[in-house]
Amino acid sequence: SKRYSITLLPGDGIGPEVISVAKNVLNLAASIDGIEFKYEEVPIGGAALDLTGLPLPDETLLSAKQSDAVLLGAIGGYKWDKNEKHLKPENGLLKLREGLKVFANLRPATVLPQLVDASTLKREVAEGVDLMVVRELTGGIYFGKPRGFGTNENGEEIGFNTEVYAAYEIDRIARVAFETARKRKGKLCSVDKANVLEASMLWRKRIMEIALEYPDVELSHMYVDNAAMQLIRDPKQFDTIVTNNIFGDILSDEASMITGSIGMLPSASLGESGPGLFEPIHGSAPDIAGQDKANPLATVLSAAMLLKYGLGEEKAAKRIEDAVLDTLNRGFRTGDIYSTGTKLVGCKEMGEEVLKSV
Amino acid sequence: SKRYSITLLPGDGIGPEVISVAKNVLNLAASIDGIEFKYEEVPIGGAALDLTGLPLPDETLLSAKQSDAVLLGAIGGYKWDKNEKHLKPENGLLKLREGLKVFANLRPATVLPQLVDASTLKREVAEGVDLMVVRELTGGIYFGKPRGFGTNENGEEIGFNTEVYAAYEIDRIARVAFETARKRKGKLCSVDKANVLEASMLWRKRIMEIALEYPDVELSHMYVDNAAMQLIRDPKQFDTIVTNNIFGDILSDEASMITGSIGMLPSASLGESGPGLFEPIHGSAPDIAGQDKANPLATVLSAAMLLKYGLGEEKAAKRIEDAVLDTLNRGFRTGDIYSTGTKLVGCKEMGEEVLKSV
Ligand SMILES: CC(C)[C@H](C(=O)O)[C@@H](O)C(=O)O
Ligand SMILES: CC(C)[C@H](C(=O)O)[C@@H](O)C(=O)O
Repeated sequence: SKRYSITLLPGDGIGPEVISVAKNVLNLAASIDGIEFKYEEVPIGGAALDLTGLPLPDETLLSAKQSDAVLLGAIGGYKWDKNEKHLKPENGLLKLREGLKVFANLRPATVLPQLVDASTLKREVAEGVDLMVVRELTGGIYFGKPRGFGTNENGEEIGFNTEVYAAYEIDRIARVAFETARKRKGKLCSVDKANVLEASMLWRKRIMEIALEYPDVELSHMYVDNAAMQLIRDPKQFDTIVTNNIFGDILSDEASMITGSIGMLPSASLGESGPGLFEPIHGSAPDIAGQDKANPLATVLSAAMLLKYGLGEEKAAKRIEDAVLDTLNRGFRTGDIYSTGTKLVGCKEMGEEVLKSV
Repeated sequence: SKRYSITLLPGDGIGPEVISVAKNVLNLAASIDGIEFKYEEVPIGGAALDLTGLPLPDETLLSAKQSDAVLLGAIGGYKWDKNEKHLKPENGLLKLREGLKVFANLRPATVLPQLVDASTLKREVAEGVDLMVVRELTGGIYFGKPRGFGTNENGEEIGFNTEVYAAYEIDRIARVAFETARKRKGKLCSVDKANVLEASMLWRKRIMEIALEYPDVELSHMYVDNAAMQLIRDPKQFDTIVTNNIFGDILSDEASMITGSIGMLPSASLGESGPGLFEPIHGSAPDIAGQDKANPLATVLSAAMLLKYGLGEEKAAKRIEDAVLDTLNRGFRTGDIYSTGTKLVGCKEMGEEVLKSV
């Protein structure tokens, strides 16, 4: 029997509820293959701020680093909104990504046949959308230096950030993207703003260079403004998208909304080696926290990504994905994906139904 | 009788075709109020590159500066795609914006009742969308310094840009946005990434400061990733949006695609004083250039914005807007907005029909 250690980061808002469901599903699905987990549950975000005064306590980062994989619920809430930058819950997440060196963020956006009508896009446009955004996660304007506040030559107050990419950062995310595309439909679209930004010009140059290693993958380039349009006009044209940190932040959220079910969408953040970070793409939803209303399926599917991408346990991962589809087929829906004729359940009950389907 | 001088920049691709239609409509609509125009037609973009080797010849900028308003068709094309950065058609446009100091870019995205079905969004989501993106146009990462290529401390090749805003740049675009919102439904949403970027933190601080001058306008703030989602989930929640140069590039294109008819959408770029720059938001569409297939209505409506925002001739502007609606009501459609039961026409014929409606 195999043993893995998992760091659980429930975080804020609905985080603890969805993590609790995902943990149960993970346990059951993996036990069938004789896999066992040792969990360490540690605080991050607002919860950590309240306990320790810091959004990412040293012990949390240490636990995460020493684990085989990290499963995160959600972070943030109104309570800490006015905090200074380094004391915001978000900063805990950014420091965790940096600390784990998880530079590759995989965000699938899939329209499930059962949930086509949840999209605000017309059925014929939304049906069959199945794309993956590969977002660079530890570079670019999020981490670039210099950054801060100052005064310009006229004594005016300024705020500034640096968008910067080094060739090796682009090369490694490019390889992840090409590998991902190769396992999917073999199409990769690189999104940049190379008609304006030097950082994007280097991006495009390196992507074209790395493309030589992947002659079987069909590569295209698109400007970010056009990509924002094309995702709405015809999302099915995309298979795999690779882009920088800030464009990836925007476009992956846009792509997720196209599916109409962001309560369903997982993500994986991976590094060169070391534990990956797995989390739903939705936020902490403070307005429904503690009310047993959250959709736990994004976190359950994040646990499936953890098995697949984090531990290489593809069979157990597939078991979870199938269980989620089966639960949907049996008609169970949380409020965010409810439609007439289906069965409305809370977070816990949804978890129990998924367990039955495993 | 009043006289104005207009610099016409037909540019590339379908630019000359749509400009020719817009000029005729402008002449007729304004003549009714006794307004006359003196036109100067000068090259920009690829056309200028071919003629002079530069995407913005000095004479072009000079003509634009000395005019009362500038009407631009479109720039760019495959032919010049491989040019070095400063010799790309796009750079002509960026230099023109900089040279005219048109820091405020107004981009309406309106779903006309006649064209609801052109949107890929469901009818009930698209119907009634009427929003305005106010984009900062001469600052931020588009123009920030330092920028370029270099090597980092490990000798790795890097590409970098600077996202920077000074307080005065934010203040002046904020005032344009608040004034715009005041003339609309009185709601302004400022979009930033203040949970991560210092440039956005200053942005938010200054917006809140300027808001004190506009107590009658309802102000909200949204992160850019969320805005990209909300535009798809429920675009009707927005009235006026204000944001920086790069976020505005992305979000205004996304908003325009929500309407499904980017061939219909005009834009205005305005400075503190001096001539404004008016252009359709669509590109040069090299694939249909010279085939009399382009939709001239975005440029015709840009001419209406020129009258309204550039010259203060609201009556003549309204006359053009009404003529466009009347032409649509009479069933005329170019290929991009055609649907069964309507009358398919080319660029020229559309122009003639609009003239009949003036
Ligand atoms: C919370 C925030 C810092 C974060 C980001 O911008 O990366 C979030 O939007 C995300 O996409 O995971
Ligand atoms: C052509 C390009 C430089 C330009 C921009 O990015 O501003 C265009 O996309 C626009 O939005 O007008």
